[in-house]
Amino acid sequence: MQATLADICRMIEKHGMEPELCGDAACVVRKVNTLEDAGPGDVSFLSNPKYERLLGETRASAVVLGRDVAAPDGLHLIRVADPYAAITAVIVELHGYRRHRRVPAGHACTHVAESARVGKNATIHPGVTIDEDVVIGDDAIIYPGCYIGPRCRIGDNVLLFPNVVIYDDTILGDRVTIHAGTVVGEDGLGYAPIGGKWVKIPQIGHVEIGNDVEIGACCTIDRATVGRTVIGSGTKFSNLIAIGHGSQIGEDCLFVAQVGLAGSVSVGRHVTMAGQAGVVGHIHIGDDATVGAKAGVTNSIPAGDTVLGQPAIPISDMKRRLAHVAKLPELRQTVKALERRIAELERVATGSAGGQG
Amino acid sequence: MQATLADICRMIEKHGMEPELCGDAACVVRKVNTLEDAGPGDVSFLSNPKYERLLGETRASAVVLGRDVAAPDGLHLIRVADPYAAITAVIVELHGYRRHRRVPAGHACTHVAESARVGKNATIHPGVTIDEDVVIGDDAIIYPGCYIGPRCRIGDNVLLFPNVVIYDDTILGDRVTIHAGTVVGEDGLGYAPIGGKWVKIPQIGHVEIGNDVEIGACCTIDRATVGRTVIGSGTKFSNLIAIGHGSQIGEDCLFVAQVGLAGSVSVGRHVTMAGQAGVVGHIHIGDDATVGAKAGVTNSIPAGDTVLGQPAIPISDMKRRLAHVAKLPELRQTVKALERRIAELERVATGSAGGQG
Amino acid sequence: MQATLADICRMIEKHGMEPELCGDAACVVRKVNTLEDAGPGDVSFLSNPKYERLLGETRASAVVLGRDVAAPDGLHLIRVADPYAAITAVIVELHGYRRHRRVPAGHACTHVAESARVGKNATIHPGVTIDEDVVIGDDAIIYPGCYIGPRCRIGDNVLLFPNVVIYDDTILGDRVTIHAGTVVGEDGLGYAPIGGKWVKIPQIGHVEIGNDVEIGACCTIDRATVGRTVIGSGTKFSNLIAIGHGSQIGEDCLFVAQVGLAGSVSVGRHVTMAGQAGVVGHIHIGDDATVGAKAGVTNSIPAGDTVLGQPAIPISDMKRRLAHVAKLPELRQTVKALERRIAELERVATGSAGGQG
Repeated sequence: MQATLADICRMIEKHGMEPELCGDAACVVRKVNTLEDAGPGDVSFLSNPKYERLLGETRASAVVLGRDVAAPDGLHLIRVADPYAAITAVIVELHGYRRHRRVPAGHACTHVAESARVGKNATIHPGVTIDEDVVIGDDAIIYPGCYIGPRCRIGDNVLLFPNVVIYDDTILGDRVTIHAGTVVGEDGLGYAPIGGKWVKIPQIGHVEIGNDVEIGACCTIDRATVGRTVIGSGTKFSNLIAIGHGSQIGEDCLFVAQVGLAGSVSVGRHVTMAGQAGVVGHIHIGDDATVGAKAGVTNSIPAGDTVLGQPAIPISDMKRRLAHVAKLPELRQTVKALERRIAELERVATGSAGGQG
Repeated sequence: MQATLADICRMIEKHGMEPELCGDAACVVRKVNTLEDAGPGDVSFLSNPKYERLLGETRASAVVLGRDVAAPDGLHLIRVADPYAAITAVIVELHGYRRHRRVPAGHACTHVAESARVGKNATIHPGVTIDEDVVIGDDAIIYPGCYIGPRCRIGDNVLLFPNVVIYDDTILGDRVTIHAGTVVGEDGLGYAPIGGKWVKIPQIGHVEIGNDVEIGACCTIDRATVGRTVIGSGTKFSNLIAIGHGSQIGEDCLFVAQVGLAGSVSVGRHVTMAGQAGVVGHIHIGDDATVGAKAGVTNSIPAGDTVLGQPAIPISDMKRRLAHVAKLPELRQTVKALERRIAELERVATGSAGGQG
Repeated sequence: MQATLADICRMIEKHGMEPELCGDAACVVRKVNTLEDAGPGDVSFLSNPKYERLLGETRASAVVLGRDVAAPDGLHLIRVADPYAAITAVIVELHGYRRHRRVPAGHACTHVAESARVGKNATIHPGVTIDEDVVIGDDAIIYPGCYIGPRCRIGDNVLLFPNVVIYDDTILGDRVTIHAGTVVGEDGLGYAPIGGKWVKIPQIGHVEIGNDVEIGACCTIDRATVGRTVIGSGTKFSNLIAIGHGSQIGEDCLFVAQVGLAGSVSVGRHVTMAGQAGVVGHIHIGDDATVGAKAGVTNSIPAGDTVLGQPAIPISDMKRRLAHVAKLPELRQTVKALERRIAELERVATGSAGGQG
């Protein structure tokens, strides 16, 4: 696909933004690229001021950027209030989303149990196993190497990338996307300590994932011991995230890579968990809370709070605490100076050089 | 399966507990469920006092709970000293463990090398590859997408969920369960730094896993550079755990999700590692030690100790340290007040307003 | 293969070392083993003084060790300045690298798109899917369960262990090795927050991996939103590492297990990241920098620096800070003592027992 800069401006306007074109409306571009990698025919963007110097080096034909950023001559510019939102609109229109190859059903390497039902227009690639009594929705796409365990219910338009494993009795809503290598519904760490041994407790619960959820690669989502592990509609996960058995996560949350939740955590809606954060079991994280990178959450968090640290506390407290720790050498110096001054006062008070100090 | 509450009480008694039934012994239940999700015909339980309020809302027919917990009218109650142990017994009797589908041998998509030997009654699903000279024990179940490398020895009743990869020369004991996506025996990070480059050292060791080990999903267990990486019998792992080359872990340990061990760590028996904890190489963790969540262990830990923090220290020291840090603002205030009082004393001592203060 | 100790000495000499044999040059050994596991016919080594006591217990026929280490009688010794470098040379010569089985092309379970091109002498195992317009180099080995997405370009002598997933448009250089279960090119966490929902931004970038890169098991490397995620030539990764979209990593870096990089991080050459370290987005890590275990890097790091802590600071500062924190109880005691001495001084100064103190 290709577009003129006039077209590009119209794409941006469609999203309620007001682009200002400083350059040739007829200039044709074919794809979006970074300032560093762009060449002639590419439209690029500058949203983070850190990279402003790249404006002078880029070979892009045109750049989407902020209203007041200085730019060298020769570049066609599209100025907007929010360059990242604008280029996002352009990416969607110019490139669109990944297209998936459809394959005919019935390949000898596609293993669909007789008792399974597969929806209209669904693509099950060779190398997939669909176990007994599974129901798969319409238009689903299931890539090679995926395994769907007995009695799972998979919604419409679900997209499973290669080697995703869904254990028995899992429920996936509509338009769920799961990236390669992720495992949903494995047993959690459920053992009874009996005589110094760990005796396995059957994990009879399951996992329910809402609509419009996207889960990254190589995540693990434990089934509940009893009842349900839940991922709310609209929630998005990055990669290598571990969710413990029985945890229930609200709608529209955003979890960054390598986050870990223990069991029976309850998470409200629109919660952000930054990278490598962890949460102990049986606590609640309120709506719209934010958990900072690497935070270790050991107590429930009220709605709207932002926490940081190990153990995690409100971020402003944590910053103050860090500042106090950073100033410890100075505090120690102050105390030493006071000690000397007191010794001197004591010497004077006792009227003797051989005093307490 | 279904059972009366009288039956349920007998299930609990069989494990040496003394249930007290307050309700209708003839009431029939069919499954265990959580207080929140239960409906008529379900037996539920209350073990964590945090959830006591749910007693008033549950639609369960019966609830297993502690001896002295207040409960609303209308619920059939089974009172015991340890409700979690009691419901575990009920889950085992009423639900049992997951049942696995058996498939006949010889499917065209099952790739078993001619030199491999597969035990009696073992199920190798289509989509599995068993490489040369592998020995698989009786009654093993190997799900689709698993790969077993050359010369591996897999014990009786081993259960490998989908997409498990076992590299060459690995030894798995009897009754080992490995969840989906886990990799055992990959090369560790073994390189010699030569002229600014990393030159690979052949990793000629292997991995040995004892009996009755359960390993979660998406774990990685490096083979030893030379010799053995060992996971002792009875040890249980959660998900996304990384074990470095040559580490040796004792029997009956419990590792929570996202734990990481560097190389050549030696871990005693019955050690607990909480979530996201990490251990540097070449140290020893004594029997029955506990490593707290997110701890960074940099020194050997004596048997029985509990450690926390980064670097990890005994938990009581860590708690004291955290308390001291939390009181830093107060300490600083105290020091400032002392400074003022000293200045005043100095002013008096010198008999002059123009003194040191 | 077998070798006399005279042969072993020659293997070591070839790498510029000067072994000194104290024992029988004609003694025959067959393999390298650890001091603990070795038996007759094994050559072992001692490089870490921690394990010196094992010299008295080993059943090895010969041991490679340092020049001045005391050793019991009866062991044949090969003394060198650097025992680890010496035994590495012996491992390479005596054992060599893993050999891979080659299989003929055209198996019914090998799914290679018609538009894909596979190089000379490449082995594509059954259970592999190669999607449209892929190019695979000569002598590549691709194990069962791997998936290579549309338009990927895979270099010569690439080795993909089982169940590796390579998304569309990824570029792998020559001699790249990727261990089992790793995913390359999945979408990053790219969403625009619109009306409290997360709206997906098409991830139109890709991943480029240089030559001679080795990546461990179960890693996840996001494709760039726009442009490229880059792993430089010669870089080596351990397991369970997450690389965010658009990050660019230089040559010859070494990343230990469970490291996480957010998006758009730029990493110089020969950088070491220790286990479980994390890096926030849009910062730069200079050449030859070292990031300590569990460090949380929130600011750019100058070339050559070593950082530790959360947030990460230069390691010497961090050690000092930790020492100050450890001495907080003592500081508090000091301040309390000063308080008492001031009160006493005040009592004396006011000449009254009823004074301020």
